[in-house]
Amino acid sequence: MRLDELAARIGGVLHGDPAVEVTGVAGVREAGPGDLTFLADPRYEEAAAETRAAAILVAADHRRFARPVIEHPDPLRAFFAAVALLHPPPPPPPPGIHPTAVVGPGVGLGDQVSIGPQAVIEAGAEIGARSIIGALVYIGREARIGTGCLLYPQVVIREECVLGDRVIVHSGSVIGSDGYGFRREGERHIKVPQIGRVVIGDDVEIGASCAIDRGTLGDTVIEHGTKFDNLVHVGHNVRIGANSLVIAQVGIGGSAVVGKGVILAGQAGIAGHVAIGDQAQIGGQAGIIASVEPGEQLWGTPAMPLHQAKRVYAAIRRTPEILREIAALKAQVAALLGEREAAGRGGTRNGDRVAKHSPEES
Amino acid sequence: MRLDELAARIGGVLHGDPAVEVTGVAGVREAGPGDLTFLADPRYEEAAAETRAAAILVAADHRRFARPVIEHPDPLRAFFAAVALLHPPPPPPPPGIHPTAVVGPGVGLGDQVSIGPQAVIEAGAEIGARSIIGALVYIGREARIGTGCLLYPQVVIREECVLGDRVIVHSGSVIGSDGYGFRREGERHIKVPQIGRVVIGDDVEIGASCAIDRGTLGDTVIEHGTKFDNLVHVGHNVRIGANSLVIAQVGIGGSAVVGKGVILAGQAGIAGHVAIGDQAQIGGQAGIIASVEPGEQLWGTPAMPLHQAKRVYAAIRRTPEILREIAALKAQVAALLGEREAAGRGGTRNGDRVAKHSPEES
Amino acid sequence: MRLDELAARIGGVLHGDPAVEVTGVAGVREAGPGDLTFLADPRYEEAAAETRAAAILVAADHRRFARPVIEHPDPLRAFFAAVALLHPPPPPPPPGIHPTAVVGPGVGLGDQVSIGPQAVIEAGAEIGARSIIGALVYIGREARIGTGCLLYPQVVIREECVLGDRVIVHSGSVIGSDGYGFRREGERHIKVPQIGRVVIGDDVEIGASCAIDRGTLGDTVIEHGTKFDNLVHVGHNVRIGANSLVIAQVGIGGSAVVGKGVILAGQAGIAGHVAIGDQAQIGGQAGIIASVEPGEQLWGTPAMPLHQAKRVYAAIRRTPEILREIAALKAQVAALLGEREAAGRGGTRNGDRVAKHSPEES
Repeated sequence: MRLDELAARIGGVLHGDPAVEVTGVAGVREAGPGDLTFLADPRYEEAAAETRAAAILVAADHRRFARPVIEHPDPLRAFFAAVALLHPPPPPPPPGIHPTAVVGPGVGLGDQVSIGPQAVIEAGAEIGARSIIGALVYIGREARIGTGCLLYPQVVIREECVLGDRVIVHSGSVIGSDGYGFRREGERHIKVPQIGRVVIGDDVEIGASCAIDRGTLGDTVIEHGTKFDNLVHVGHNVRIGANSLVIAQVGIGGSAVVGKGVILAGQAGIAGHVAIGDQAQIGGQAGIIASVEPGEQLWGTPAMPLHQAKRVYAAIRRTPEILREIAALKAQVAALLGEREAAGRGGTRNGDRVAKHSPEES
Repeated sequence: MRLDELAARIGGVLHGDPAVEVTGVAGVREAGPGDLTFLADPRYEEAAAETRAAAILVAADHRRFARPVIEHPDPLRAFFAAVALLHPPPPPPPPGIHPTAVVGPGVGLGDQVSIGPQAVIEAGAEIGARSIIGALVYIGREARIGTGCLLYPQVVIREECVLGDRVIVHSGSVIGSDGYGFRREGERHIKVPQIGRVVIGDDVEIGASCAIDRGTLGDTVIEHGTKFDNLVHVGHNVRIGANSLVIAQVGIGGSAVVGKGVILAGQAGIAGHVAIGDQAQIGGQAGIIASVEPGEQLWGTPAMPLHQAKRVYAAIRRTPEILREIAALKAQVAALLGEREAAGRGGTRNGDRVAKHSPEES
Repeated sequence: MRLDELAARIGGVLHGDPAVEVTGVAGVREAGPGDLTFLADPRYEEAAAETRAAAILVAADHRRFARPVIEHPDPLRAFFAAVALLHPPPPPPPPGIHPTAVVGPGVGLGDQVSIGPQAVIEAGAEIGARSIIGALVYIGREARIGTGCLLYPQVVIREECVLGDRVIVHSGSVIGSDGYGFRREGERHIKVPQIGRVVIGDDVEIGASCAIDRGTLGDTVIEHGTKFDNLVHVGHNVRIGANSLVIAQVGIGGSAVVGKGVILAGQAGIAGHVAIGDQAQIGGQAGIIASVEPGEQLWGTPAMPLHQAKRVYAAIRRTPEILREIAALKAQVAALLGEREAAGRGGTRNGDRVAKHSPEES
């Protein structure tokens, strides 16, 4: 595509040769001739100045570069628009049911639904219009999938679970596995029936190989717009608010309540039954064993406020030195006390009263 | 169901209107009219007093509630019985082999076995009576599945592995993947054949998306009654005793030996080759790098006794303050020593002997 | 197999009865009559002396054992050769496409490729000679699989991803899921297209239930000879060098660069965008939030040099004691200062000048 056409289609202003052809997109360092790149973060200005890209998408206040530039007030957004033009997503699979798929009785399919090869849809499930059910996906009895959803190959949605509209689930994820609930009888653990559901709101994305348990009695709920990375665990009856970010390998114990706009960084662990307030941010590998106020930033195990955690983790590196210094101080103070004791004995014969008797008084 | 019928069927004693109808079950806070709820933990008494439930299952020594109550000596157990009555589990899939399943030669199937759509059972596998093999499950060559097992969709049981009776495996779990064994040749890692099996006892439950490796030579063994949560890793030749609880995202390194009745809390990591004694309890995110005595409760990385860990993790928050206090003490002691030094110099000209010479002596 | 034949076939020298029959292999402690075992690590000499094995593979400088021995300069390697003789791997599945597999248009298959039951190969994919594609595997559009690869059942390879030769992928792993990339618009997170690939080198092994994300623009790259354990997460645009070891449940954030010959121990977390130098070794559960020099050994969260971490983690256990000692020191020093103050006041009336006025001077 010529630069002038590209600029016009993404609503940018071209400075440079309009006839230059772009055929791809790339980061500023990786770009080669023929690529469009972008500058959205000033830390990359130097790299942008040296890029081999055919053209650079920049904000209005850009530096002068040797390469043609396309000015746009939001260069990152414009870049994604260009990505969509230059790398159009592959056409969706054709609507319809692949002949190898197994679709049970009473399944409701909206318009233009696509069911991939070897998929299994159990009786009474409902799948909304334009949703794409990948190959080898399993959808359980009476599950409800909204419109415009995308389930990648080898997803499992267990019976009665509910997905909103435009939900994306990546391969290997399991929605609605039984919660981990047992009741003790002597040494044995007796399974507690898990009859709740998982209910997922609109525009949620679930990464690969996540496991989200159904509720024991009520539901496990993930509100709209929340995005999961890979290998996340969610226990039974957890509730996660809207537009939160749950990074890879986070684990959330049963009945925990996570607010809206929360960020749980990678490998963080949230104990069961705690509450995490809206907009809280939990650092990587943190261990949350008590509830968290809205907006708090925590890190560490057990977690503390981020600024404190940074100071504490810097300070504990000096504990070996602290031990040495305390030993030295103890020796010095013991020496001083020994002198005083000797002095006190000489003076008053009463060590307890030494502090009241300075040498001058004796 | 009328309350009097329900009370009779679960063996409880009704106090209240026998004609009240219950149609569902719910927790004490979530329950609405028509629901049965229960009070098993005294912390929920207040909530039970305010519940909107149609009736409450309580122990014999309950408070007086406005709602009808059913007394039962074990209200939790009685509640689960009521759950089974009011929410009977869906009928199991019909026995037989789904026409889309692929069953290899020499497969042995007990009475009433159900093989779901798209499942693949390799040659020589044995599946015990009444076991349910879900859709899209893979069972490898000569694997043996006991009676009454339930394998949810998309489980993988690799060749020669053995499951006892009444084993439940949730979707996405892999039993019998190769152990992680390599032998170094220069910079390269040469694969060590993994010819052992995984052997799982009766009444074990494996959560979703777990990975349990086969043994290198001998077997990886999980004894009866042990329950796994989701996303657990078990290395080759691990042995886990009976009735243990392994919570989500725990990782157990190769050849570790875990006792009976052990609890490994979420995200704990157990190094290879360590032994964990019976009834030990390992806290969340703990890192176990040395063997653990029976009954020990440990937490932290590297782990310490729980009561110590709690004190240590509280204390380390004060390390920045400790550093400030040590600096202040050093300055104060230096001042005192300086005085003494000055005093000593004035008196004896011999700093080393100062401690032996109090001012009075000089 | 007779011992003399076995010794000859593995290139070892037999000392003992040549007619003894061996039928299996086992570790030195587990071995019974009929088993071959080995002694490669001197710590097992005692156990080898007591083994019930039929024969022991030993290095040339072995102790005298009661059992027949086969001497070999590399007993471990010879043992694996014996394993292959005594436990030959099962015959590979027959070449060809299982009738239940679904193979799209334009798929290129090398000689002797085997496609298992219920597998799905999308249009334009290429699979090299002698590769084995397990049951229920999904291979996306235009993916390229090299020669001699082994994909166990229920692997997902997403569109356009590339695997080198002799790559092994265990069940449940997902190669090429979307990277975790969102752009904020107010409270909402807008998906950033993920148009890169995953490119995996020769002789890589990926454990069970791993999730490896495709690049956002460029590729996620895993170089030759690197071995992954189970449940590993790899973010978008990560690059991992050759012959590295990535142990179970490690998480690697987007755009991190891991060198060659690196070891990342179990549950370690690598933050996005950091670089880890060649041959570095990262301990279990470590949290890497800054770049690591080649050859460094780190442990802890946040990570420190291993020798320092060991000292620090030993020392922090004494922080409760440190707090007590500091309190005691403060009281003692306060007492000493109080005396001096009293002395100073008596002498000079000027506490600030006390240090300059020893008792003798006043």
